Amino acid sequence: MVVKVYGPIYGCPKRVVVCLIEKEIEFEGVHVDLFKGENKEPEFLKLQPFGSLPVIQDGDYTLYESRAIIRYFAEKYKDQGTDLLGKTIEEKGLVEQWLEVEAHNFHPPIYDLVINLLFAPLMGDPSDQKVIEESDKKLEKVLDVYEERLSKSKYLAGDFFSLADLSHLPFGHYLVNQTGRGNLVRERTHVSAWWDEISNRPSWKKVLQLYKYAV
Amino acid sequence: MVVKVYGPIYGCPKRVVVCLIEKEIEFEGVHVDLFKGENKEPEFLKLQPFGSLPVIQDGDYTLYESRAIIRYFAEKYKDQGTDLLGKTIEEKGLVEQWLEVEAHNFHPPIYDLVINLLFAPLMGDPSDQKVIEESDKKLEKVLDVYEERLSKSKYLAGDFFSLADLSHLPFGHYLVNQTGRGNLVRERTHVSAWWDEISNRPSWKKVLQLYKYAV
Repeated sequence: MVVKVYGPIYGCPKRVVVCLIEKEIEFEGVHVDLFKGENKEPEFLKLQPFGSLPVIQDGDYTLYESRAIIRYFAEKYKDQGTDLLGKTIEEKGLVEQWLEVEAHNFHPPIYDLVINLLFAPLMGDPSDQKVIEESDKKLEKVLDVYEERLSKSKYLAGDFFSLADLSHLPFGHYLVNQTGRGNLVRERTHVSAWWDEISNRPSWKKVLQLYKYAV
Repeated sequence: MVVKVYGPIYGCPKRVVVCLIEKEIEFEGVHVDLFKGENKEPEFLKLQPFGSLPVIQDGDYTLYESRAIIRYFAEKYKDQGTDLLGKTIEEKGLVEQWLEVEAHNFHPPIYDLVINLLFAPLMGDPSDQKVIEESDKKLEKVLDVYEERLSKSKYLAGDFFSLADLSHLPFGHYLVNQTGRGNLVRERTHVSAWWDEISNRPSWKKVLQLYKYAV
Protein backbone atom coordinates (compact mmCIF):
# COMPACT_ATOMS: atom_id res chain seq x y z
CA MET A 1 0.00 0.00 0.00
CA VAL A 2 1.46 3.36 -0.99
CA VAL A 3 2.01 6.10 1.57
CA LYS A 4 -0.50 8.98 1.49
CA VAL A 5 0.85 12.52 1.96
CA TYR A 6 -1.68 15.25 2.68
CA GLY A 7 -1.13 18.73 1.21
CA PRO A 8 1.96 18.28 -1.01
CA ILE A 9 1.58 21.65 -2.77
CA TYR A 10 2.48 23.46 0.49
CA GLY A 11 5.89 24.06 2.06
CA CYS A 12 6.10 21.77 5.11
CA PRO A 13 4.62 18.72 3.35
CA LYS A 14 7.35 19.04 0.69
CA ARG A 15 9.83 18.19 3.49
CA VAL A 16 8.11 14.79 3.63
CA VAL A 17 7.84 14.35 -0.14
CA VAL A 18 11.55 14.95 -0.77
CA CYS A 19 12.37 12.49 2.03
CA LEU A 20 10.11 9.80 0.50
CA ILE A 21 11.84 10.26 -2.87
CA GLU A 22 15.33 10.03 -1.29
CA LYS A 23 14.21 6.85 0.50
CA GLU A 24 12.64 5.39 -2.68
CA ILE A 25 9.24 4.95 -1.03
CA GLU A 26 6.08 4.92 -3.15
CA PHE A 27 3.52 7.58 -2.27
CA GLU A 28 0.55 9.56 -3.49
CA GLY A 29 -0.48 13.14 -2.68
CA VAL A 30 -3.89 14.01 -1.22
CA HIS A 31 -4.95 17.58 -1.92
CA VAL A 32 -6.05 19.76 1.02
CA ASP A 33 -7.06 23.34 0.18
CA LEU A 34 -5.88 25.68 2.94
CA PHE A 35 -7.44 28.67 1.19
CA LYS A 36 -10.87 26.98 1.46
CA GLY A 37 -10.17 25.99 5.09
CA GLU A 38 -10.33 22.24 4.38
CA ASN A 39 -7.73 21.75 7.11
CA LYS A 40 -10.28 22.91 9.71
CA GLU A 41 -13.03 20.51 8.64
CA PRO A 42 -14.02 17.71 11.09
CA GLU A 43 -12.79 14.91 8.82
CA PHE A 44 -9.34 16.45 8.60
CA LEU A 45 -9.20 17.28 12.32
CA LYS A 46 -9.67 13.56 13.05
CA LEU A 47 -6.31 13.01 11.36
CA GLN A 48 -4.56 16.17 12.64
CA PRO A 49 -6.30 17.81 15.61
CA PHE A 50 -4.35 21.08 15.27
CA GLY A 51 -5.46 21.52 11.64
CA SER A 52 -1.90 21.63 10.30
CA LEU A 53 -0.17 20.01 7.35
CA PRO A 54 1.31 17.55 6.59
CA VAL A 55 -0.19 14.25 7.73
CA ILE A 56 0.82 10.86 6.35
CA GLN A 57 -0.89 7.49 6.33
CA ASP A 58 1.33 4.45 6.07
CA GLY A 59 -1.20 1.59 5.94
CA ASP A 60 -3.32 2.15 9.04
CA TYR A 61 -0.61 4.18 10.80
CA THR A 62 -1.21 7.95 10.86
CA LEU A 63 1.50 10.47 11.74
CA TYR A 64 1.79 14.26 11.65
CA GLU A 65 4.48 16.93 12.11
CA SER A 66 6.85 16.96 9.12
CA ARG A 67 10.08 16.53 11.08
CA ALA A 68 8.64 13.57 13.02
CA ILE A 69 7.52 11.98 9.75
CA ILE A 70 10.92 12.30 8.06
CA ARG A 71 12.64 10.77 11.10
CA TYR A 72 10.12 7.89 11.03
CA PHE A 73 10.73 7.05 7.36
CA ALA A 74 14.51 7.56 7.61
CA GLU A 75 14.59 5.01 10.42
CA LYS A 76 11.99 2.56 9.08
CA TYR A 77 13.83 2.35 5.74
CA LYS A 78 17.34 2.81 7.14
CA ASP A 79 18.89 0.54 4.50
CA GLN A 80 16.87 1.71 1.50
CA GLY A 81 17.68 4.76 -0.63
CA THR A 82 19.86 7.53 0.80
CA ASP A 83 20.93 7.11 4.44
CA LEU A 84 19.77 10.38 6.05
CA LEU A 85 20.63 9.72 9.71
CA GLY A 86 24.41 9.38 9.99
CA LYS A 87 26.39 6.23 10.79
CA THR A 88 27.14 6.67 14.51
CA ILE A 89 25.23 7.93 17.52
CA GLU A 90 27.46 11.01 17.53
CA GLU A 91 26.74 11.75 13.86
CA LYS A 92 23.05 11.23 14.50
CA GLY A 93 23.25 13.65 17.44
CA LEU A 94 24.57 16.34 15.09
CA VAL A 95 21.83 15.58 12.56
CA GLU A 96 19.31 16.12 15.37
CA GLN A 97 21.06 19.32 16.49
CA TRP A 98 20.92 20.88 13.02
CA LEU A 99 17.34 19.68 12.48
CA GLU A 100 16.47 21.59 15.66
CA VAL A 101 18.42 24.64 14.45
CA GLU A 102 16.42 24.51 11.21
CA ALA A 103 13.17 24.33 13.18
CA HIS A 104 13.94 26.99 15.77
CA ASN A 105 16.40 29.42 14.13
CA PHE A 106 16.01 29.17 10.35
CA HIS A 107 12.32 28.36 9.90
CA PRO A 108 10.56 31.03 12.03
CA PRO A 109 11.96 34.13 10.28
CA ILE A 110 11.59 32.75 6.75
CA TYR A 111 8.07 31.51 7.62
CA ASP A 112 7.17 35.01 8.83
CA LEU A 113 8.52 36.46 5.58
CA VAL A 114 6.47 34.02 3.49
CA ILE A 115 3.32 34.85 5.46
CA ASN A 116 3.83 38.60 5.20
CA LEU A 117 5.26 38.88 1.68
CA LEU A 118 3.35 36.12 -0.14
CA PHE A 119 0.25 34.89 1.72
CA ALA A 120 -0.97 38.17 3.27
CA PRO A 121 -1.30 40.06 -0.04
CA LEU A 122 -3.08 37.04 -1.56
CA MET A 123 -5.58 36.94 1.33
CA GLY A 124 -6.06 40.70 1.26
CA ASP A 125 -4.40 41.03 4.70
CA PRO A 126 -1.94 43.79 5.55
CA SER A 127 1.78 42.93 5.71
CA ASP A 128 3.56 43.73 8.97
CA GLN A 129 6.62 45.81 8.06
CA LYS A 130 8.15 45.47 11.53
CA VAL A 131 7.98 41.66 11.36
CA ILE A 132 9.56 41.75 7.90
CA GLU A 133 12.48 43.88 9.10
CA GLU A 134 13.05 41.76 12.22
CA SER A 135 12.90 38.55 10.17
CA ASP A 136 15.51 39.84 7.73
CA LYS A 137 17.86 40.67 10.61
CA LYS A 138 17.33 37.28 12.26
CA LEU A 139 17.99 35.45 8.98
CA GLU A 140 21.24 37.36 8.43
CA LYS A 141 22.52 36.29 11.85
CA VAL A 142 21.44 32.68 11.38
CA LEU A 143 23.09 32.48 7.96
CA ASP A 144 26.30 33.93 9.39
CA VAL A 145 26.45 30.93 11.73
CA TYR A 146 25.71 28.60 8.80
CA GLU A 147 28.53 30.22 6.78
CA GLU A 148 31.00 29.52 9.57
CA ARG A 149 29.76 25.94 9.99
CA LEU A 150 29.76 25.21 6.24
CA SER A 151 33.31 26.52 5.92
CA LYS A 152 34.29 23.46 8.00
CA SER A 153 32.04 20.71 6.67
CA LYS A 154 30.30 20.16 3.35
CA TYR A 155 26.88 19.65 4.94
CA LEU A 156 25.41 20.84 8.24
CA ALA A 157 25.90 17.69 10.31
CA GLY A 158 29.22 16.68 8.69
CA ASP A 159 30.42 15.49 5.32
CA PHE A 160 27.19 13.62 4.55
CA PHE A 161 23.79 14.80 3.28
CA SER A 162 21.19 14.24 6.01
CA LEU A 163 17.70 15.09 7.26
CA ALA A 164 19.21 18.32 8.60
CA ASP A 165 20.02 19.61 5.10
CA LEU A 166 16.91 18.13 3.49
CA SER A 167 14.69 19.89 6.02
CA HIS A 168 15.86 23.29 4.70
CA LEU A 169 14.72 22.68 1.12
CA PRO A 170 11.04 23.81 1.17
CA PHE A 171 11.60 27.17 2.87
CA GLY A 172 15.11 27.61 1.44
CA HIS A 173 13.30 27.57 -1.92
CA TYR A 174 11.04 30.40 -0.74
CA LEU A 175 14.06 32.31 0.55
CA VAL A 176 16.04 32.09 -2.68
CA ASN A 177 13.30 32.14 -5.31
CA GLN A 178 10.08 33.69 -4.06
CA THR A 179 10.75 36.37 -1.44
CA GLY A 180 13.52 38.34 -3.16
CA ARG A 181 16.05 37.26 -0.48
CA GLY A 182 18.41 35.27 -2.72
CA ASN A 183 21.16 37.75 -1.89
CA LEU A 184 21.21 36.51 1.74
CA VAL A 185 22.37 33.16 0.38
CA ARG A 186 24.50 34.41 -2.52
CA GLU A 187 26.52 36.84 -0.37
CA ARG A 188 27.78 33.88 1.68
CA THR A 189 30.19 31.66 -0.30
CA HIS A 190 29.73 28.43 1.64
CA VAL A 191 25.99 28.80 2.18
CA SER A 192 25.61 29.49 -1.54
CA ALA A 193 27.60 26.38 -2.54
CA TRP A 194 25.65 24.26 -0.02
CA TRP A 195 22.33 25.55 -1.35
CA ASP A 196 23.33 24.74 -4.94
CA GLU A 197 24.42 21.27 -3.85
CA ILE A 198 21.22 20.35 -2.01
CA SER A 199 18.71 22.09 -4.29
CA ASN A 200 20.20 20.40 -7.36
CA ARG A 201 19.61 16.91 -6.01
CA PRO A 202 17.34 14.92 -8.34
CA SER A 203 14.92 14.35 -5.43
CA TRP A 204 14.25 18.07 -4.98
CA LYS A 205 13.95 18.68 -8.72
CA LYS A 206 11.39 15.88 -8.80
CA VAL A 207 9.40 17.52 -5.97
CA LEU A 208 9.24 20.81 -7.88
CA GLN A 209 8.18 18.98 -11.00
CA LEU A 210 5.43 16.99 -9.23
CA TYR A 211 3.98 19.67 -6.97
CA LYS A 212 4.22 23.33 -7.89
CA TYR A 213 4.16 25.65 -4.86
CA ALA A 214 0.68 26.95 -3.98
CA VAL A 215 2.22 30.43 -3.63
CA MET B 1 34.17 11.45 32.65
CA VAL B 2 30.90 13.02 33.79
CA VAL B 3 28.67 14.90 31.37
CA LYS B 4 28.75 18.70 31.67
CA VAL B 5 25.43 20.57 31.35
CA TYR B 6 25.59 24.34 30.82
CA GLY B 7 22.96 26.56 32.47
CA PRO B 8 20.93 24.10 34.60
CA ILE B 9 19.08 26.82 36.54
CA TYR B 10 17.17 27.81 33.37
CA GLY B 11 14.14 26.15 31.78
CA CYS B 12 15.39 24.43 28.60
CA PRO B 13 18.53 22.96 30.23
CA LYS B 14 16.26 21.30 32.83
CA ARG B 15 14.87 19.21 29.94
CA VAL B 16 18.37 17.73 29.66
CA VAL B 17 18.93 17.37 33.41
CA VAL B 18 15.72 15.40 33.99
CA CYS B 19 16.62 13.14 31.06
CA LEU B 20 20.10 12.47 32.48
CA ILE B 21 18.56 11.52 35.83
CA GLU B 22 16.01 9.19 34.18
CA LYS B 23 18.87 7.57 32.25
CA GLU B 24 21.07 7.31 35.38
CA ILE B 25 23.93 9.23 33.77
CA GLU B 26 26.41 11.13 35.95
CA PHE B 27 26.64 14.85 35.25
CA GLU B 28 27.67 18.21 36.64
CA GLY B 29 26.14 21.64 36.04
CA VAL B 30 28.16 24.58 34.70
CA HIS B 31 26.69 27.95 35.62
CA VAL B 32 26.08 30.48 32.82
CA ASP B 33 24.57 33.82 33.87
CA LEU B 34 22.11 35.01 31.22
CA PHE B 35 21.43 38.20 33.17
CA LYS B 36 25.14 39.12 32.87
CA GLY B 37 25.15 38.10 29.19
CA GLU B 38 27.71 35.32 29.71
CA ASN B 39 25.96 33.41 26.88
CA LYS B 40 27.12 36.08 24.42
CA GLU B 41 30.80 35.95 25.41
CA PRO B 42 33.30 34.60 22.84
CA GLU B 43 34.22 31.54 24.92
CA PHE B 44 30.57 30.49 25.14
CA LEU B 45 29.86 31.24 21.47
CA LYS B 46 32.60 28.74 20.56
CA LEU B 47 30.40 26.07 22.15
CA GLN B 48 27.01 27.42 21.00
CA PRO B 49 27.23 29.95 18.15
CA PHE B 50 23.65 31.19 18.65
CA GLY B 51 24.29 32.03 22.31
CA SER B 52 21.51 29.74 23.58
CA LEU B 53 21.29 27.25 26.40
CA PRO B 54 21.73 24.35 27.00
CA VAL B 55 24.99 22.89 25.72
CA ILE B 56 26.43 19.56 26.88
CA GLN B 57 29.91 18.10 26.77
CA ASP B 58 30.17 14.33 26.82
CA GLY B 59 33.93 13.75 26.85
CA ASP B 60 35.16 15.71 23.80
CA TYR B 61 31.72 15.63 22.12
CA THR B 62 29.76 18.90 22.26
CA LEU B 63 26.05 19.12 21.47
CA TYR B 64 23.39 21.82 21.75
CA GLU B 65 19.60 22.16 21.39
CA SER B 66 17.83 20.50 24.32
CA ARG B 67 15.59 18.19 22.29
CA ALA B 68 18.55 16.97 20.21
CA ILE B 69 20.50 16.31 23.42
CA ILE B 70 17.74 14.26 25.05
CA ARG B 71 17.34 12.15 21.90
CA TYR B 72 21.12 11.58 21.86
CA PHE B 73 21.26 10.34 25.46
CA ALA B 74 18.03 8.31 25.17
CA GLU B 75 19.57 6.47 22.24
CA LYS B 76 23.15 6.20 23.50
CA TYR B 77 21.96 4.67 26.77
CA LYS B 78 18.94 2.84 25.34
CA ASP B 79 19.27 -0.04 27.82
CA GLN B 80 20.12 1.99 30.92
CA GLY B 81 17.57 3.68 33.20
CA THR B 82 14.10 4.46 31.87
CA ASP B 83 13.47 3.65 28.19
CA LEU B 84 12.23 6.98 26.79
CA LEU B 85 11.93 6.13 23.09
CA GLY B 86 9.25 3.46 22.72
CA LYS B 87 9.75 -0.18 21.70
CA THR B 88 8.80 -0.15 18.00
CA ILE B 89 9.41 2.23 15.10
CA GLU B 90 5.71 3.13 15.21
CA GLU B 91 5.86 3.97 18.94
CA LYS B 92 9.00 5.99 18.33
CA GLY B 93 7.24 7.86 15.52
CA LEU B 94 4.54 8.94 17.98
CA VAL B 95 7.18 10.00 20.52
CA GLU B 96 8.71 12.17 17.79
CA GLN B 97 5.29 13.55 16.82
CA TRP B 98 4.45 14.65 20.37
CA LEU B 99 7.97 16.00 20.90
CA GLU B 100 7.35 18.20 17.86
CA VAL B 101 3.92 19.21 19.19
CA GLU B 102 5.61 20.22 22.46
CA ALA B 103 8.18 22.28 20.54
CA HIS B 104 5.81 23.96 18.07
CA ASN B 105 2.41 24.15 19.80
CA PHE B 106 2.94 24.01 23.57
CA HIS B 107 6.29 25.73 24.06
CA PRO B 108 5.90 29.02 22.10
CA PRO B 109 2.86 30.40 24.00
CA ILE B 110 4.10 29.38 27.46
CA TYR B 111 7.57 30.73 26.59
CA ASP B 112 5.99 34.06 25.59
CA LEU B 113 4.09 34.13 28.89
CA VAL B 114 7.27 33.45 30.87
CA ILE B 115 9.11 36.22 29.03
CA ASN B 116 6.32 38.76 29.47
CA LEU B 117 5.12 37.84 32.97
CA LEU B 118 8.39 36.88 34.68
CA PHE B 119 11.51 38.03 32.83
CA ALA B 120 10.32 41.41 31.48
CA PRO B 121 9.44 42.88 34.91
CA LEU B 122 12.76 41.62 36.28
CA MET B 123 14.69 43.29 33.45
CA GLY B 124 12.64 46.48 33.73
CA ASP B 125 11.11 45.86 30.28
CA PRO B 126 7.41 46.45 29.52
CA SER B 127 5.10 43.42 29.24
CA ASP B 128 3.17 43.05 25.99
CA GLN B 129 -0.50 42.64 26.95
CA LYS B 130 -1.51 41.58 23.43
CA VAL B 131 1.06 38.77 23.40
CA ILE B 132 -0.15 37.63 26.84
CA GLU B 133 -3.78 37.44 25.70
CA GLU B 134 -2.92 35.63 22.46
CA SER B 135 -0.70 33.16 24.33
CA ASP B 136 -3.48 32.34 26.77
CA LYS B 137 -5.86 31.62 23.90
CA LYS B 138 -3.32 29.46 22.08
CA LEU B 139 -2.58 27.45 25.24
CA GLU B 140 -6.28 26.78 25.83
CA LYS B 141 -6.65 25.34 22.33
CA VAL B 142 -3.50 23.25 22.63
CA LEU B 143 -4.56 21.85 26.00
CA ASP B 144 -7.99 20.97 24.59
CA VAL B 145 -6.21 18.70 22.09
CA TYR B 146 -4.09 17.24 24.91
CA GLU B 147 -7.25 16.56 26.96
CA GLU B 148 -8.74 14.58 24.08
CA ARG B 149 -5.51 12.66 23.50
CA LEU B 150 -4.95 11.91 27.20
CA SER B 151 -8.50 10.61 27.52
CA LYS B 152 -7.36 7.76 25.26
CA SER B 153 -3.83 7.03 26.48
CA LYS B 154 -2.07 7.56 29.81
CA TYR B 155 0.85 9.44 28.25
CA LEU B 156 1.14 11.47 25.06
CA ALA B 157 2.75 8.86 22.80
CA GLY B 158 0.88 5.88 24.31
CA ASP B 159 0.80 4.00 27.59
CA PHE B 160 4.48 4.62 28.31
CA PHE B 161 6.36 7.63 29.71
CA SER B 162 8.65 9.03 27.01
CA LEU B 163 10.77 11.98 25.87
CA ALA B 164 7.50 13.56 24.68
CA ASP B 165 6.12 13.83 28.23
CA LEU B 166 9.48 14.62 29.80
CA SER B 167 9.99 17.52 27.42
CA HIS B 168 6.94 19.30 28.91
CA LEU B 169 8.28 19.38 32.47
CA PRO B 170 10.37 22.60 32.54
CA PHE B 171 7.74 24.89 31.02
CA GLY B 172 4.80 22.91 32.41
CA HIS B 173 6.28 23.86 35.79
CA TYR B 174 6.18 27.54 34.82
CA LEU B 175 2.60 27.12 33.56
CA VAL B 176 1.30 25.51 36.74
CA ASN B 177 3.41 27.17 39.41
CA GLN B 178 4.86 30.49 38.33
CA THR B 179 2.59 32.23 35.84
CA GLY B 180 -0.77 31.85 37.63
CA ARG B 181 -2.07 29.57 34.84
CA GLY B 182 -2.56 26.41 36.92
CA ASN B 183 -6.28 26.57 36.17
CA LEU B 184 -5.60 25.81 32.47
CA VAL B 185 -4.30 22.41 33.62
CA ARG B 186 -6.67 21.84 36.55
CA GLU B 187 -9.83 22.51 34.49
CA ARG B 188 -8.94 19.55 32.25
CA THR B 189 -9.30 16.20 34.06
CA HIS B 190 -6.92 14.14 31.96
CA VAL B 191 -4.30 16.86 31.51
CA SER B 192 -4.39 17.42 35.27
CA ALA B 193 -3.89 13.72 36.07
CA TRP B 194 -1.09 13.49 33.49
CA TRP B 195 0.65 16.53 34.93
CA ASP B 196 0.48 15.08 38.45
CA GLU B 197 1.85 11.79 37.16
CA ILE B 198 4.86 13.25 35.34
CA SER B 199 5.71 16.06 37.75
CA ASN B 200 5.72 13.64 40.70
CA ARG B 201 8.38 11.44 39.18
CA PRO B 202 11.45 11.25 41.44
CA SER B 203 13.60 12.52 38.55
CA TRP B 204 11.72 15.83 38.32
CA LYS B 205 11.65 16.29 42.09
CA LYS B 206 15.40 15.80 42.07
CA VAL B 207 15.82 18.47 39.36
CA LEU B 208 13.85 20.99 41.44
CA GLN B 209 15.92 20.11 44.50
CA LEU B 210 19.26 20.42 42.67
CA TYR B 211 18.60 23.54 40.60
CA LYS B 212 16.09 26.13 41.69
CA TYR B 213 14.59 28.09 38.81
CA ALA B 214 16.42 31.38 38.07
CA VAL B 215 12.98 33.07 37.88
